[in-house]
Amino acid sequence: MKLYDCAIAPNPRRARMFIAEKGLDIPTVQVDLLAGDNLKPDYLAVNPRGLLPALQLDDGTVIDEVVAICRYLEELHPTPALLGTTPGERAVVEARQRQMEFDGMIATSEVFRNSHPDFADRSLPGDPNRPPAVAGLVARGRRTLGGFFDALEGHLDHSEFVAGNQLSLADITALCAIDFAGWVEIRIPEANTNTRRWYDSLSARPSAAA
Amino acid sequence: MKLYDCAIAPNPRRARMFIAEKGLDIPTVQVDLLAGDNLKPDYLAVNPRGLLPALQLDDGTVIDEVVAICRYLEELHPTPALLGTTPGERAVVEARQRQMEFDGMIATSEVFRNSHPDFADRSLPGDPNRPPAVAGLVARGRRTLGGFFDALEGHLDHSEFVAGNQLSLADITALCAIDFAGWVEIRIPEANTNTRRWYDSLSARPSAAA
Repeated sequence: MKLYDCAIAPNPRRARMFIAEKGLDIPTVQVDLLAGDNLKPDYLAVNPRGLLPALQLDDGTVIDEVVAICRYLEELHPTPALLGTTPGERAVVEARQRQMEFDGMIATSEVFRNSHPDFADRSLPGDPNRPPAVAGLVARGRRTLGGFFDALEGHLDHSEFVAGNQLSLADITALCAIDFAGWVEIRIPEANTNTRRWYDSLSARPSAAA
Repeated sequence: MKLYDCAIAPNPRRARMFIAEKGLDIPTVQVDLLAGDNLKPDYLAVNPRGLLPALQLDDGTVIDEVVAICRYLEELHPTPALLGTTPGERAVVEARQRQMEFDGMIATSEVFRNSHPDFADRSLPGDPNRPPAVAGLVARGRRTLGGFFDALEGHLDHSEFVAGNQLSLADITALCAIDFAGWVEIRIPEANTNTRRWYDSLSARPSAAA
């Protein structure tokens, strides 16, 4: 199998961190998102949606959503568990993961893509129809990120990690969202001491540099 | 367990259809989204995110994302499988499900919430900070829905259902998205004969009325 990746991009980083925490070694193919190579014929032949990352299996099957990629790898390599170990835990990890994704990762993407001049006709990832920037999403994304930081601080007041006392994909998504938010100068609020403790600890793991 | 539900809302319908296809009987508590009851203290005490549906387990745990709810129920009641039966199938179902969700359900939500006068300060679901409508999302959502219908027609040209030859959550999400799109007068294109065949067949299942 191989991972279509873009080393600088926040969403592929989630897959790389997950793979590193699993101790796996999966070859990568770099696709230059900034140059728009994900929307060119070579990559669209692999993934018609133009999204990164994508995992291509040896039989040619392409899995093109990071959460689906992670679940596939979790099933093949259950240890260490990064999606929970019981049905209840897995449900909480998935719900928390989605909160971190929607309110953290996607909100940041809305701020970034709709304010950066290089993305003036790339309001959405993977859309070859070049949707124009929507200015109102910058303020909306910033508001959502305010709620994201509040919720994250609350979760980390109750447990060591975002979805309990084990590292999970919810943590990986939240960390990648926060570092992505730094691109638009949004930082963890000073008062959020739980989050800052968690962020420093997670950032020091080797997987954070994967 | 009990399901916090809103009978008219598209997203809770995904959970109800899933539960009906499983042959399960789970008591529901109705929360009036149009009246904004999901953002009032009674419901925020159950789910601080204000989102519907939410599944409350007997131990008090609240699972507040429809995909997490469905996965939990799938683990407890594996037959009939609605999320795939092998790691590869499950990955494809999840990836396809997310495509139907992002490009169908969420795109429709953007069109609806940002154009309907009753949602002028509810641009996002579950946000108690009352984010104002973002006019540019109406056109962006319509464009995304065009791509959704193209992709869906292509999937259904290769297989009976959206993610292979077994019904899955990807079908349920796509059906709920299409009926939701009807609220903003967006319909399956006449030329999309695979989709119309699939839509008629799926709409005739008892679960579609759940």
